[in-house]
Formats: sequence, structure tokens, C-alpha cells
Amino acid sequence: MTRFGIIGGGLMGHGIAVALAQAGHRIVVYDADPVTLASLDERIVRALERCDTPPGDVGMMTARITAAKTLADLVLRVDVVIEAVPERLDVKHQVLAALEEKIPAVMPVWSNTSVLSLTEVAKDMRHPQRLVGVHWWNPPYVIPLVEVAPGAETDHRFVQEACDMLDGMGKTTVRLHRDVRGFIGNRLQFALVREALHLLEQGVCDPGTIDTVMRTSLGLRWSAVGPMENADFIGLDLTRDILDSLAPHLSVAVTFPALDKPLSAGHRGRASGGGLLAWPAGQGEEVAERLDSGIRRNLVEP
Amino acid sequence: MTRFGIIGGGLMGHGIAVALAQAGHRIVVYDADPVTLASLDERIVRALERCDTPPGDVGMMTARITAAKTLADLVLRVDVVIEAVPERLDVKHQVLAALEEKIPAVMPVWSNTSVLSLTEVAKDMRHPQRLVGVHWWNPPYVIPLVEVAPGAETDHRFVQEACDMLDGMGKTTVRLHRDVRGFIGNRLQFALVREALHLLEQGVCDPGTIDTVMRTSLGLRWSAVGPMENADFIGLDLTRDILDSLAPHLSVAVTFPALDKPLSAGHRGRASGGGLLAWPAGQGEEVAERLDSGIRRNLVEP
Repeated sequence: MTRFGIIGGGLMGHGIAVALAQAGHRIVVYDADPVTLASLDERIVRALERCDTPPGDVGMMTARITAAKTLADLVLRVDVVIEAVPERLDVKHQVLAALEEKIPAVMPVWSNTSVLSLTEVAKDMRHPQRLVGVHWWNPPYVIPLVEVAPGAETDHRFVQEACDMLDGMGKTTVRLHRDVRGFIGNRLQFALVREALHLLEQGVCDPGTIDTVMRTSLGLRWSAVGPMENADFIGLDLTRDILDSLAPHLSVAVTFPALDKPLSAGHRGRASGGGLLAWPAGQGEEVAERLDSGIRRNLVEP
Repeated sequence: MTRFGIIGGGLMGHGIAVALAQAGHRIVVYDADPVTLASLDERIVRALERCDTPPGDVGMMTARITAAKTLADLVLRVDVVIEAVPERLDVKHQVLAALEEKIPAVMPVWSNTSVLSLTEVAKDMRHPQRLVGVHWWNPPYVIPLVEVAPGAETDHRFVQEACDMLDGMGKTTVRLHRDVRGFIGNRLQFALVREALHLLEQGVCDPGTIDTVMRTSLGLRWSAVGPMENADFIGLDLTRDILDSLAPHLSVAVTFPALDKPLSAGHRGRASGGGLLAWPAGQGEEVAERLDSGIRRNLVEP
């Protein structure tokens, strides 16, 4: 049993807390926003219900997670600190500076950054050797994968310790040899999204068609056979022939008119009732449930 | 009931024949290679067994598919011609030229090209207005998706007719507004593969890790919720923030040392016993079965 402190009680922070509680750990959560902290219990109970926790276990799980009203209160009660604050370098720097004033030099710190450079996140730290990139996928209590990466100055013993702890929780832990923005999963995801937006901008199809194609071809197979195994399966010679033909035509974009256009009209997606697609009332819940059941039916033994 | 002629009895040709037979159509298959043609029956029976065709129906299905020893024999017996020959522009041009000498100007021709430009495929045709890009996914008798696209000179009535026929067979048909190499699905797939190879070349991880990440995160969800719906779901503002941060660092490669290296050592993948990954005896069958079961568990009503 390890005592984890989580800084940031938002979507990822509370989700990570639930994942750790499922594995029997104790968790203290701190958030600078009292409103976020006040709703923590309620959101944790809902998460536990969503993953079919037996009703008798919900109380035991929630008892493992407590809130701290100050950072000073949190650090006194934990062995490992996880930062899960918003993805802004200035926010991360501020939180890590305040944290390092209060904890011993040897205490591990895990950053849940997903698209920032971990080396840049660690830049002003007094003891950057203890910062490990530990990237969970949402929801952390359902998705098996956790990606672990070192920054340029990280001591590899801290990386190994993080991997061992996550493996011990039954997560599927992958260890990156070095720091890279987006780790592996988000780079793969957004390489595909970049091309999807390119197809919209070139007038090839509308957004709904992109999703139909994914759901009825590639999406059917990528939970079973990954892209590298598939490249070997069809043959690396054929794979190279296809890439030789396609790669010069694939998107290299760094700007995204297909997103700017709806955004400039106030269409931000689900939250605003419309974005790339229409979001009539109830659609958000329908998609959340569909996602949930999609993940579950693919959660099979490897 | 329509009578289809298929030129090319290889992997895609025989798979398309089975998909059409399942829908009650009659099919004549021609292949310039007598060995390919001789094994057609056997491969069709195996395909029917793989998709759990009741034994009593196998004979009825195979009776719908016959072989033609010459192109002249094929064209006399069909209403629509499908070319499913190898992905080489010179081969496609040669086959289409020979075909057009023998069929009336109004007979539809569907090309199963996947990465060539349909407009280039149609370039030397006498009647390019009848050429429709109809891209099936392997195996065509299992995967719902068929992508349909016009070349620059295609008459849209031929496109509409193809979509109507495919919809009538219960396929999930998507219609592209215009010709694009790779259609939608292969562009999305190879945009992701390009980034995966980039991560290998940058020393971030090994090939097996790429597959683990895909299978335990993104692969769990893309059969349920596509990337455009997901962008709206998390918010287009967040999506743009992530892309602003990641896109300048994503691969723009047109050469692929991660493929060239194993290929120059004779490692072509499954067929040669090793490629990006090791392929011990029996591994090919294991992957084929895993792919099959992965597809099946995701083949749920939308």
C-alpha cells in the first residue's frame, strides 16, 4: 500500500484517484479550486458506479480517497506526488516550484502531462531527476494503458519504480526510451486526426463519413492487431510500396481551418451543442455510453 | 440479381466474389494466371467456412461463382466488371484497354484500386465516365465498409448506381466527393503508420510497444466512437490546443529507414519469418485468428 498525493482534482485527477483506490492504495487529493474539491466525492462515486463496482465496495473505495485543503496538508501524508493540473507550462512550473519547497529531495513526482515536453516541465526543478512522465488514459480506472517516460534529467531508478508500481496494479505499462511530446498514443491519434482534418479541408468528405470509415474498417481491428504487426502481416515490401505512393500526399499541416471555422462561429463541439457534427440533446450521454460499451467489449485478455 | 465479372482472382478478387455471392449475385472470375484460377474454388470454400457459412449453404454459394478461362469468355456473361488486378498503373491500363475493346460503352467498370489515383487509372480509357473507384476492405465478406469515389471524368450516375447496389447488399457504403489516393481509410491508416515508424526511428520505443499502446488505448474505442465525434466530445478548443502543440513535431517523412533496414536484410515480415517483429512458426495463424475474432466482437449494430 502506497500513499499517493494528487495535485489537481479535475477529470484526470479524480480518475487516477479511482484507479489507485481500486489497487488498494491510499490517495489524498488537493485542488486550488474549492468547488472542484467539494464535488470530488460525488464524482468518485459516479466513476465507481460506472465501472460496476459492487455496491458493498463503494464505501471501502471512497474511504481510501480523502481531500486536502492545502498543499502543505497533502505533502505530510504521502509517499509519491502526482501532478494532474491543466496542460499549461506556466501552471505546471508554478505547482512544481511550490511542491518542491515542501517535500524531501528523494520523493518521486509523477507528471500526467500528455502533450508538453517533460524536459520542459522539469526545467526549473531543483531535483528534476525525480520527475517521471506517467500518462494515464481516460478513464484511468478502465483503460489498461499507462505510458511512462523519462525527461532528459530523470534518474532511471525513478522510472523503474513507477513502472514496477503500475505493473503491480495490473496496468499495462509501456516505458518510452526517451521524452517525446504526446508520448506514443497521442502522437498516433493526432497524426490520424491531422489527416482526417486534411480530408475535410480538401473537400473529400464530411466529418460523419470519417467516423463511419473508422468504425467499420480500421476500428474493427486495432484492438486485436496493432499497426506494426499488421505491417509484417501484409509484408514490409507492400507496406513500403503503399507508403511510397501515399506519404507524399499525406497532411503535413500545422494549421487547421477545419477547426478554426466552427470555433470562430462559437461551435466548440458537444459543450456548445454543435461542432464538426450536430449535438442534439442527449447525444453526449449516448456517445459516452457507446464509448463505454465499445471499450468493455474489447477489454479481453491479450 | 446482377452478374459481376471480376478480373483478378487473387486475395481481393476472390474475397469480393464471396461478398457478392453472399448477397445472391452471380460472379464470373478471370485471372491471367491459370494457377490462381485453379485454386479459386478451394479458396472460396475456405473463405465461406471462415465466416461460418452453414455447411448446407456452401454449395449454393460456390455455384454462384464460376471461372472464365479468357477475358472474352468473361465479358459475354456479365453486367458489371470489377478490376481487382495488382496495384500497378501499367497493369491496370493494360487490363482496362483490353477490356474496353470487348464491352459496350455503357457497361459499368469498378476499379478496386486503393492507393493509385483513379483519375490516372482512367487516363487512357475510351469511356472514362464509367469507371468508379470501389474500394473493398479485406476480407470483403466480413468488413462492412466499401468506399466509393469518382475519378475526374466519372459520370455521377455510375457512382450512384454503385452505391445503390452496395447498399442493397447490406454493405456500409461511403461516397467520396472526389478522387483521392488511398481513399479515406488507407490515408488515415498510413498517416498513423507514418508516425509509428517515426517513433521507431527516433528511438522512442520498439515496434511491439507501438502495438501494445494501440491495442490497450485507441484500439479499444475507435470501433465505437470515431475521431471526429471524439474531437467534438472533448471539445474543438482542446483538440486545437493539442494539435497546436503536437502537429509541428509529427512526422512529415516520405522515406522510411525503419522499413528499409529490415527489408535490405531480407526481413519482409510474416512471409520471411521476421520483420519489425519476430514471426515464429504458427504466429501467422495466431494473428489471423486474433484479427478475425477482434473484427467479429466489434461487428455490432451501429
